Amino acid sequence: MDWPKGIGGLCYGGDYNPEQWPEEVWKEDVALMRRAGVNLVSVGVFSWARLEPSPGSYDFAWLDRVLDLLHGAGVRVNLATPTASPPPWFGLAHPDALTVTADGTRLTHGSRDTYCVSAPAYREASARIAGELARRYRGHPALAMWHVHNEYGTGCHCDHAAAAFRTWLRGRYGTLDALNDAWTGSFWSQHHSAWEQVMPPRATQYLPNPAQTLDFRRFLSDEMLAHFREQKAVLREHTPDVPATTNFVLGDWVPVDHRRWAAETDLVAVDHYPAADPPQETAFAADLARGWAGGRPWLLMEQAVVTYTGLRMIAKRPGEITRLSLSHIARGSRGVMFFQWRASRGGAEPWHAGMVPHAGEDSRIFREITELGALLPSLEEACRAPVEAGAAVLWDAEAGWALQAPGLPSTGLDYTRAVRQAHRVLYRGGVTADVVHPSADLSAYRLVLVPALYLISDDDAANLRRHVEGGGTLVVTYLSGVADLCARVRTGGYPGALRDLLGVRVEESHPLPPGTALYVSTRLPDADLSRLLGLEPSPLELVRRGEWVFAVNHGDDEQQVPDGPLLPPGGYAVRRARQG
Amino acid sequence: MDWPKGIGGLCYGGDYNPEQWPEEVWKEDVALMRRAGVNLVSVGVFSWARLEPSPGSYDFAWLDRVLDLLHGAGVRVNLATPTASPPPWFGLAHPDALTVTADGTRLTHGSRDTYCVSAPAYREASARIAGELARRYRGHPALAMWHVHNEYGTGCHCDHAAAAFRTWLRGRYGTLDALNDAWTGSFWSQHHSAWEQVMPPRATQYLPNPAQTLDFRRFLSDEMLAHFREQKAVLREHTPDVPATTNFVLGDWVPVDHRRWAAETDLVAVDHYPAADPPQETAFAADLARGWAGGRPWLLMEQAVVTYTGLRMIAKRPGEITRLSLSHIARGSRGVMFFQWRASRGGAEPWHAGMVPHAGEDSRIFREITELGALLPSLEEACRAPVEAGAAVLWDAEAGWALQAPGLPSTGLDYTRAVRQAHRVLYRGGVTADVVHPSADLSAYRLVLVPALYLISDDDAANLRRHVEGGGTLVVTYLSGVADLCARVRTGGYPGALRDLLGVRVEESHPLPPGTALYVSTRLPDADLSRLLGLEPSPLELVRRGEWVFAVNHGDDEQQVPDGPLLPPGGYAVRRARQG
Amino acid sequence: MDWPKGIGGLCYGGDYNPEQWPEEVWKEDVALMRRAGVNLVSVGVFSWARLEPSPGSYDFAWLDRVLDLLHGAGVRVNLATPTASPPPWFGLAHPDALTVTADGTRLTHGSRDTYCVSAPAYREASARIAGELARRYRGHPALAMWHVHNEYGTGCHCDHAAAAFRTWLRGRYGTLDALNDAWTGSFWSQHHSAWEQVMPPRATQYLPNPAQTLDFRRFLSDEMLAHFREQKAVLREHTPDVPATTNFVLGDWVPVDHRRWAAETDLVAVDHYPAADPPQETAFAADLARGWAGGRPWLLMEQAVVTYTGLRMIAKRPGEITRLSLSHIARGSRGVMFFQWRASRGGAEPWHAGMVPHAGEDSRIFREITELGALLPSLEEACRAPVEAGAAVLWDAEAGWALQAPGLPSTGLDYTRAVRQAHRVLYRGGVTADVVHPSADLSAYRLVLVPALYLISDDDAANLRRHVEGGGTLVVTYLSGVADLCARVRTGGYPGALRDLLGVRVEESHPLPPGTALYVSTRLPDADLSRLLGLEPSPLELVRRGEWVFAVNHGDDEQQVPDGPLLPPGGYAVRRARQG
Repeated sequence: MDWPKGIGGLCYGGDYNPEQWPEEVWKEDVALMRRAGVNLVSVGVFSWARLEPSPGSYDFAWLDRVLDLLHGAGVRVNLATPTASPPPWFGLAHPDALTVTADGTRLTHGSRDTYCVSAPAYREASARIAGELARRYRGHPALAMWHVHNEYGTGCHCDHAAAAFRTWLRGRYGTLDALNDAWTGSFWSQHHSAWEQVMPPRATQYLPNPAQTLDFRRFLSDEMLAHFREQKAVLREHTPDVPATTNFVLGDWVPVDHRRWAAETDLVAVDHYPAADPPQETAFAADLARGWAGGRPWLLMEQAVVTYTGLRMIAKRPGEITRLSLSHIARGSRGVMFFQWRASRGGAEPWHAGMVPHAGEDSRIFREITELGALLPSLEEACRAPVEAGAAVLWDAEAGWALQAPGLPSTGLDYTRAVRQAHRVLYRGGVTADVVHPSADLSAYRLVLVPALYLISDDDAANLRRHVEGGGTLVVTYLSGVADLCARVRTGGYPGALRDLLGVRVEESHPLPPGTALYVSTRLPDADLSRLLGLEPSPLELVRRGEWVFAVNHGDDEQQVPDGPLLPPGGYAVRRARQG
Repeated sequence: MDWPKGIGGLCYGGDYNPEQWPEEVWKEDVALMRRAGVNLVSVGVFSWARLEPSPGSYDFAWLDRVLDLLHGAGVRVNLATPTASPPPWFGLAHPDALTVTADGTRLTHGSRDTYCVSAPAYREASARIAGELARRYRGHPALAMWHVHNEYGTGCHCDHAAAAFRTWLRGRYGTLDALNDAWTGSFWSQHHSAWEQVMPPRATQYLPNPAQTLDFRRFLSDEMLAHFREQKAVLREHTPDVPATTNFVLGDWVPVDHRRWAAETDLVAVDHYPAADPPQETAFAADLARGWAGGRPWLLMEQAVVTYTGLRMIAKRPGEITRLSLSHIARGSRGVMFFQWRASRGGAEPWHAGMVPHAGEDSRIFREITELGALLPSLEEACRAPVEAGAAVLWDAEAGWALQAPGLPSTGLDYTRAVRQAHRVLYRGGVTADVVHPSADLSAYRLVLVPALYLISDDDAANLRRHVEGGGTLVVTYLSGVADLCARVRTGGYPGALRDLLGVRVEESHPLPPGTALYVSTRLPDADLSRLLGLEPSPLELVRRGEWVFAVNHGDDEQQVPDGPLLPPGGYAVRRARQG
Repeated sequence: MDWPKGIGGLCYGGDYNPEQWPEEVWKEDVALMRRAGVNLVSVGVFSWARLEPSPGSYDFAWLDRVLDLLHGAGVRVNLATPTASPPPWFGLAHPDALTVTADGTRLTHGSRDTYCVSAPAYREASARIAGELARRYRGHPALAMWHVHNEYGTGCHCDHAAAAFRTWLRGRYGTLDALNDAWTGSFWSQHHSAWEQVMPPRATQYLPNPAQTLDFRRFLSDEMLAHFREQKAVLREHTPDVPATTNFVLGDWVPVDHRRWAAETDLVAVDHYPAADPPQETAFAADLARGWAGGRPWLLMEQAVVTYTGLRMIAKRPGEITRLSLSHIARGSRGVMFFQWRASRGGAEPWHAGMVPHAGEDSRIFREITELGALLPSLEEACRAPVEAGAAVLWDAEAGWALQAPGLPSTGLDYTRAVRQAHRVLYRGGVTADVVHPSADLSAYRLVLVPALYLISDDDAANLRRHVEGGGTLVVTYLSGVADLCARVRTGGYPGALRDLLGVRVEESHPLPPGTALYVSTRLPDADLSRLLGLEPSPLELVRRGEWVFAVNHGDDEQQVPDGPLLPPGGYAVRRARQG
């Protein structure tokens, strides 16, 4: 397991935005950081307008003072390139580089992420500010790592994007004939006779072409990755020994294939904001991050002290911050980071909360933050042991994108929900699972779950066959295997690529309305799927890492740890298992 | 009853899109068509990009082979002009001919129907490709009929549309004064002082002008009809003996007055996709089609082997394909056609299904298709007898459009729902009804239902009076007769034009929320309306055609046919009634 | 109490739009007005297209005849400037003066209020038509008052609006530094380095800046007020003695701070259309109007004879028109006016109803209108007495706008609902309350309710402290005091500015889902809040004005008036209280 040298042990801290506060607050900040045990902060994520107040004119003095101050307090810096939010002057200087929506609306600055990642002006400005930062802070003793951009995930439909999309498609398909075949151009007269006819999925009259939409998401992922690579190369040039990453954001809407990206980062970093069911969502997100990291350590870069349910922002219950943090660490995170250090007063997210809340240091939240900071050093050894997983849940971003198309057999399809359900029944049954891609080496797993894997390549189908031939168990749910990588249905009977392996041939599909009694051939309620897999749900989370066992009681009753203590409600224990 | 010569007896087949498949599949297609008894297929509906890969350059070779192959197998061809989906090159060559939405968004190709029917470039390109097809295939022995365009129904708000709308309005109203009066231009300062001020209903600040919106739908209907007429004239020139039609699509959103169009076609053809209640919706659609055809035979041009509920695509139950097909034939269809012959692999609608499903010929669906094909020839004689209807339900597209305006007494108004309810209670009570326009000859009907006929002309109101004076019964429901053809309320008390006839004067309207107990003066639940009309609901569909009786049991219990057999659940019978 | 001289006693009438009817109807109109006791009508509100059929060419002849006719019948005229709906020619001549939405769509005429209030062409055209009207009708004996524009409330996002917004911001903040500080420009890199970078809140990528959005609403209010002032100045020049006002429209969407506007009008006029609960909504609206008027008389300029619930338009129950009108008068209105005199036949609002309904004079509605007209003169003396209120509910438009931002602790926040609830429990408990701004003199009130006052200035917080120090009771509900006037959260613990006064320090917020049992620290159901305040709900509305008592029974049971008569269901009484 290689964890970048120089980052050190368990990271603890969060986004630190000193530019939002007068300088006298900075001193209080570092004093409180010391009290809380903070050792790493992400600085400068949205500071472009402060660093480059007008084109080509830079102001680093304030940031110099911040880094010196932090260094003096023993806090290291995860320094961000600020490219996720160009300053207001950028859009005025380069209106062609502002985002255009599918219906042709050109967006205006006033939020964040308002740019086209394919626009030359944006790419140049990004590389330039990254270079300036690297030149300025190479050798600064506080600099621990680079935080490139922030939560990549924004697409555009402008002519720059169209041109880049065509270039990408030429690379993927070579010829127009191959593109027309992949996109089934014969349907609805969509055969292209020249490359300039190929468009991003802009507003059109009726149902869009699902293969075009799918390829556009693939393109966006690669295009943003190119932007990341450019910045990383600039940073590497000046600071060859400083690791660089970017924080992945989870969400169905994100057109980023994080699995492919992971190989390009020096460490996998993940933001995670659970909503409806924090313990289970946390376990899933952490297992997914570990899958992206190929089983290696990764870093929880952002979480919050509140839960945002989509409708309400609710302060986490007493101890919940610690319990969810432990769940992340148990599942491979080498640290616990928050958005953000100090809750903002104004701007768009004053209610997003912070480690230092509006109420200040004299608050339950800051006391819990301090307690967590005191706890973490005791986990240094445990978190270097490998996470042990006997089961795997397959997950593929492209399959999920394909299931977002209209015109599928049911409007109720939800890939993330399907994968999370599969993971959840294992989680509730006490089984630690890896969440991995269908192409992963499956030999270590007794049980592999394949939920709703609509898209699958022939090679990956063969990989599943090898798993079964090797004695493993495979559980496949509805719609898996049905389509190829161009989202074309495999004919001859469903489930297409998995028909022979499963010995099943399905002729027709009867999507049932919610509430109807369900058969095994379709989505199962958790309890039934648990029963099918012989699992008994439990609120006690147990994760084994080598000889270490992490036990977290997320429930409201006492829970007995096998061969271990009786945990009170909300209690947890990390202990070395008895040998033999 | 005149049915175009040359089409022959009962048609059986569907849309055939060989361009979606490699040529080796075509041979299997015709072999399976023969096995299934298919005798007519619609070819080329969306093939423009294949027929004219670049402007003015044509490729008919593949279509030659398709037509020859079909002819060799005894399958005749309903040859389509492909104008419902211009190729990608079209929009690049003529960006001014792409659809513009009400809010000014210009759409991009990538779906279908992305054009402005008023754009000169589109009109020219349409006539040209139709002419090329006619020249190429005149005299081809497989050519049975022309399928002009596909499912007309797409509007546009661009400047071409605006100019055409003004021309149409000049034709309708003659003077600006007359237009201002018809549109009540005195309300909200909408008086026009020059023709160029008159606009399509584009995005505006608040409530739109309902008379303008209504006239724009009338205009779109006429404008698309002009496009149809132009193509038909081109085809007629080259193939004077080949009948031409277009397939009507049903739906509240369709700005097409099919009743007016019917007179311009050589036969009425209808696409029908039921959703919530297939038997009843089928009976309604078929009776409506027969009304458009003036009681003459018509053709079910498209149905599907799945039911698309809006949320889910559900395979039809065993026998359901046959039962619904029989219902169409019993009600006047001279054939049974499907979208489509072979389910697509890719494109926007792979799950729309086909007579040959993804699973292939070894499937329940294809077996049922084959059984249906074997059954149809036995119905040749029966389907030449006239449909007998003792009741009529009035239906007027314009009245429906008027009820789509905002600002009406209730947002719960739904014209189609109201008309379908009236039809449904008759259907469930075993009464075969014609669905006809208020101007139709009503002398043959004992009972005429007038549901929610918001808009009515003085002449049509007089027609209803004649029906009553002749001894007929008239049942009028809420909001009928209230407005004139410009959607202006008739003063003096509701129901306006029908006040004297009914002897009722209503001062005020109290739209009740759903769930409240209802009075006779408003919408009735089916059971109550059935009771009012002395009808007893039954799942047994009986349609009398001359001495023939069609009996279809759509229910789950046995049903006794009067003077006939006991039908098992899902059973049907077509028999000659005993004489005397 | 100063009520403009020349308006006279209780006004009775409505919007009169003779341009919608042929001239022969006008004579019937004035005859019916006399019968109904109408003494004031608002004329010309949407008549611009008739008055100025083409740019600079005027037609006043028809309006001359209307005013002469009304004068002859003793009906006075509230003459409107027609600027709320420019004629179709205006947009063609000045496309830059049409509204642009946040996403850049330029709207088209076809409704009403389609203009940019910041566009020079619109401002000039407005002043010109106002001047022409004033010149024409100065000295006309029917002219009683000016009705400037109609229901101000429409914003725009175009470049004219952007330029005006910048000018306004310079006036408010002086420097860019101050603006950046007020808007927390440091969040998400929104620091502006030049004024031309400052934009209206146009479509952007993600969450907008709440301070920018709030200031844009403030700007719109001031910008529309400037438009009002310009017209008023023109009218004043020609008719120095004729009072001028505009009709305020209530609604969460209206970016108008009516409290600030009130001082610029010669009398406060309000339109009111209750929806779900007419008696309570009427009492609230009337108390709010009285607050705007500073306790002075005001005028109910529009109400309707139907209730529009948002889903249905329902005729008011027998007597309800009178009861609600009495409630308005009891609470300070010097008249009862309706939209509109005669229900329209066409246009966008034929179902909005009128004092003369579609059914004509022989109708329940017109009979009730006539009865109400006969009743009003008996209230002349009573309505000159002051309204007595022992409690106050605080209301601030800016606080409401701030609570419309996304990103707040709960999506369920609704300022109007919160304020109306506070008012409702007092209303139901028989307490007449003033609805006043937090800066108002509170010394007269025993009890002051402060619902959800998210935004508060330091001065206003001090005003509340003085109320308590003076022995008054203050009841403050959730989120009050939390933010400053720039919508920045006050740190140190909630409720910020009221923390010390209340002796409460809140660290965290737990917004509960609807249906959960609630604690005192959050929104209470009416019954509980009533109980907290020691009130007993009652359907009997009692308002004391000097020695007069207005009693209205809105309930379905008899109600005993204290020391007065037993009122039947729906009954009312206005009587002089016994002395001593």
